[in-house]
Amino acid sequence: MTEAPTRRGRGGGGAARRAERTAVRIECAKTISRNIPNLEILNEEALEIIEYNAETVLEEVGVNFVENPTALERWKNAGADVSGERVRIPRGLARELCKTAPSSFTQHARNPERNVEIGGKNMVLAPVYGPPFVRDAAGGRRYATMEDFRKFVKLAYMSKWLHHSGGTVCEPTDVPVNKRHLDMLLAHMTLSDKPYMGSVTAPERAQDSIEMSEILFGKEFVQQNTVMTSLININSPMQYDDVMMGAMEVFAANNQASIISPFIVGGAMAPVSVAGTLTQVLAEVLAGVAYSQLVRKGAPVVAGTFVSSIDMNSGAPTFGTPEAAHVTYGAGQLFRRLGLPYRSAGSFNGSKLPDAQAAYESANSLNMGLLSGVNFMLHAAGWLEGGLVASFEKFVMDADQLGTLHHLAKGIEVDENAQAMDAIREVGPGGHYLGCAHTQSNFKTAFWRSDLLDYKPFETWEEEGARDTEALATARVQKLLTDYQQPGIDPGIAEGLRDYVETKKASMPDAFG
Amino acid sequence: MTEAPTRRGRGGGGAARRAERTAVRIECAKTISRNIPNLEILNEEALEIIEYNAETVLEEVGVNFVENPTALERWKNAGADVSGERVRIPRGLARELCKTAPSSFTQHARNPERNVEIGGKNMVLAPVYGPPFVRDAAGGRRYATMEDFRKFVKLAYMSKWLHHSGGTVCEPTDVPVNKRHLDMLLAHMTLSDKPYMGSVTAPERAQDSIEMSEILFGKEFVQQNTVMTSLININSPMQYDDVMMGAMEVFAANNQASIISPFIVGGAMAPVSVAGTLTQVLAEVLAGVAYSQLVRKGAPVVAGTFVSSIDMNSGAPTFGTPEAAHVTYGAGQLFRRLGLPYRSAGSFNGSKLPDAQAAYESANSLNMGLLSGVNFMLHAAGWLEGGLVASFEKFVMDADQLGTLHHLAKGIEVDENAQAMDAIREVGPGGHYLGCAHTQSNFKTAFWRSDLLDYKPFETWEEEGARDTEALATARVQKLLTDYQQPGIDPGIAEGLRDYVETKKASMPDAFG
Repeated sequence: MTEAPTRRGRGGGGAARRAERTAVRIECAKTISRNIPNLEILNEEALEIIEYNAETVLEEVGVNFVENPTALERWKNAGADVSGERVRIPRGLARELCKTAPSSFTQHARNPERNVEIGGKNMVLAPVYGPPFVRDAAGGRRYATMEDFRKFVKLAYMSKWLHHSGGTVCEPTDVPVNKRHLDMLLAHMTLSDKPYMGSVTAPERAQDSIEMSEILFGKEFVQQNTVMTSLININSPMQYDDVMMGAMEVFAANNQASIISPFIVGGAMAPVSVAGTLTQVLAEVLAGVAYSQLVRKGAPVVAGTFVSSIDMNSGAPTFGTPEAAHVTYGAGQLFRRLGLPYRSAGSFNGSKLPDAQAAYESANSLNMGLLSGVNFMLHAAGWLEGGLVASFEKFVMDADQLGTLHHLAKGIEVDENAQAMDAIREVGPGGHYLGCAHTQSNFKTAFWRSDLLDYKPFETWEEEGARDTEALATARVQKLLTDYQQPGIDPGIAEGLRDYVETKKASMPDAFG
Repeated sequence: MTEAPTRRGRGGGGAARRAERTAVRIECAKTISRNIPNLEILNEEALEIIEYNAETVLEEVGVNFVENPTALERWKNAGADVSGERVRIPRGLARELCKTAPSSFTQHARNPERNVEIGGKNMVLAPVYGPPFVRDAAGGRRYATMEDFRKFVKLAYMSKWLHHSGGTVCEPTDVPVNKRHLDMLLAHMTLSDKPYMGSVTAPERAQDSIEMSEILFGKEFVQQNTVMTSLININSPMQYDDVMMGAMEVFAANNQASIISPFIVGGAMAPVSVAGTLTQVLAEVLAGVAYSQLVRKGAPVVAGTFVSSIDMNSGAPTFGTPEAAHVTYGAGQLFRRLGLPYRSAGSFNGSKLPDAQAAYESANSLNMGLLSGVNFMLHAAGWLEGGLVASFEKFVMDADQLGTLHHLAKGIEVDENAQAMDAIREVGPGGHYLGCAHTQSNFKTAFWRSDLLDYKPFETWEEEGARDTEALATARVQKLLTDYQQPGIDPGIAEGLRDYVETKKASMPDAFG
């Protein structure tokens, strides 16, 4: 099965198949390429204090690698002080080990036009990850199913501004927990041609992700190239569990990328102060990335941070807050100094509905993500209710707003056309620019335009039913799902993937919970 | 009347009056003081190109001062080339004249605790300005009245994060157009103790603003201090009408501040390109500020930009867009190089409702305003439907979000307490920070907390009626208006103000439209 023809169509395929492929061509931005600076809110002194403290934490406090004797052995051999499951890392060692991780890497998609470069001045946008619930206006809040999952994959595929198909866009709770990853991977691989993430919920599921990717891309291609970027959470504070680390080991050994990401609710999993949180985050990422390089030197990794604040009245995590922004800006600076690609931010919010709260908090976080130098933004669309819910309407709202980030990132052109001196001379005081030559030749590309939001005159808007953003989004979800056409895929590969999934599923009893 | 006792209570007043004053003490942030850098998106070369081009525009194309022979005379005397109403300003002259404008100034409030410093690293936040309509959930969209106006003044007074009472928070359309300014000023002066703006719709109304301020502060105090910051729009492109300039002349002559602000819908009143718009904006501000200094050297001024994009399909202005952000960032850099305080941004959006669109667009604009170095943000709360509507719910939503800007601006502390090394040592791998000593002693001030948004568990939220942000905001508007207590004012001053308004109103026939 893994000997199936590599990359779409290379193994042959007739004109019909090629026609099918071209029929479903959709427009998609390549990536966000920043032509604007990052906001650097920590000065050199602050950066050095935090870096020094993080090394102190690694050396004095250390980190736990839980139920993972191989990891402890690797650390011991590398020169760390291992005692029980506690690994204390001498000052400078983790930083030194991190140096073999690439500062940027290409994640390949089955459609090479959708390959993404993760690192440098780029930002790659991927959908929400992990919610057990979905919500839409018609059906309200309910447990997510595999059918919901497929819809989100289609919506991400149809989005001009999402570069990546993501991973667990919602938890398909109607599929046994030990088999979900197979259906999810199959959906990403066949319903979209954008890059995707692998399964991390068990080492053997990571292995399945590799094997399915080998069917899709060819075995040799997978060994020589990165085709998955997967999310490895650290159990903050400073604990690396065997499940997540086991998955990471599989991915690293196969040259596949991992996002090594502390998961922080400030005040609970990290100190209540921003500088303290940054210290812990840096220590955790240093140890995690260093460990990936002990597994395989040069394995691609992304330094991550997931951070929310906490409402000290209720204990609820809060999103789109200034303190989360501080951590995100600061972590960007620290990770750039390490020369690592950076994952953070997203369409974060704590609202139950895709309303104004959801939008304020999400916009705060999305803008902050752009300006903090994030290279991979998971959760860029669809997040609701603190990540418990993937919302269909919110998904297309966020996806639309991601267009503003693309345009902001372009920066300001100052070539002769952009200077527009002829236009200013032509129009003169008291005139207007609507009809002038410069406007005529530039207006089509001059301004970002929403594909969703309402720009109509009040009277028209009222006649059409006085719809709010959620209602507009409901209509857009329906339109996109109606317009959706599956991107062409070599039938032999598709069959190989289905066979693999069926065979695997048949080999295991169902497990739930 | 203008000989009335100066500043609150100085002319006497008993214990009862003093007790009344202290009873209504409300919490209000002094100002936003930035401890984070601005985002500088233009490089030196781009800045120099735009600066050079702006001077070329002033020299070759020039600006019109309409129906204002005094202005033309002043320009001629200053060395400009005046032909008809066209003023062509030799390269460097306007820039030179701008040098006498202060880089920062204090605007005094009748309560000295509410004085604001406009310039430097500060940002002062003021409410929406100008909408002819209001909206709330109960009453929908309707023409604004003086009663609505008073409610907005009260809401701004009650806000912790609005530093300024603003000006025409809505157009009180039930009051004759030639008398509105009197009622509006009376409301600002008596219902709030925050600083306010003067009337600019006619030179004589500017004069009334001065005279009423003299009653409130004392004549001498007004001549020696700035007690108003008023909005003077330029009719872009490059036209300075006699009404606005006439008002500006009155304010400058009396040492009162003007915001000199091009009003731009990109592609209509300025070139469709960002660099072209910045060139025109800089030329317009240079000429306007220079002119203020010809009226009175050292008169306080603020360099403004109001910019929106245009939807080239419908011609509608659009808000919270990336191109508007580019102009706002760029103008901030250009004006800082001129050493002038900067006005821009606001809670801009084009939505008809206080929904997700309104919030996305507003958040985009508010965040951008903070990071572009704005010193005076008009329209910081309440803006809806492209500025046609002042929304009560949106007002309290925005006012709440302004808290995030305050906290973001604080930057990251790195003192020993913030470093939290003891906490990290105390908690260790696998622990949690909720109960640790550092969290206990810091949690109250660690995180910004919304006074409006929903942080409740899903079940509680559902039991309480599954309210969206607008519904929460409706309740908050009602609560604030119920809790409102008028800040104490010397009864003699209050009476003097009422007398002035009555006498003025009686002296004029009503005028509408």
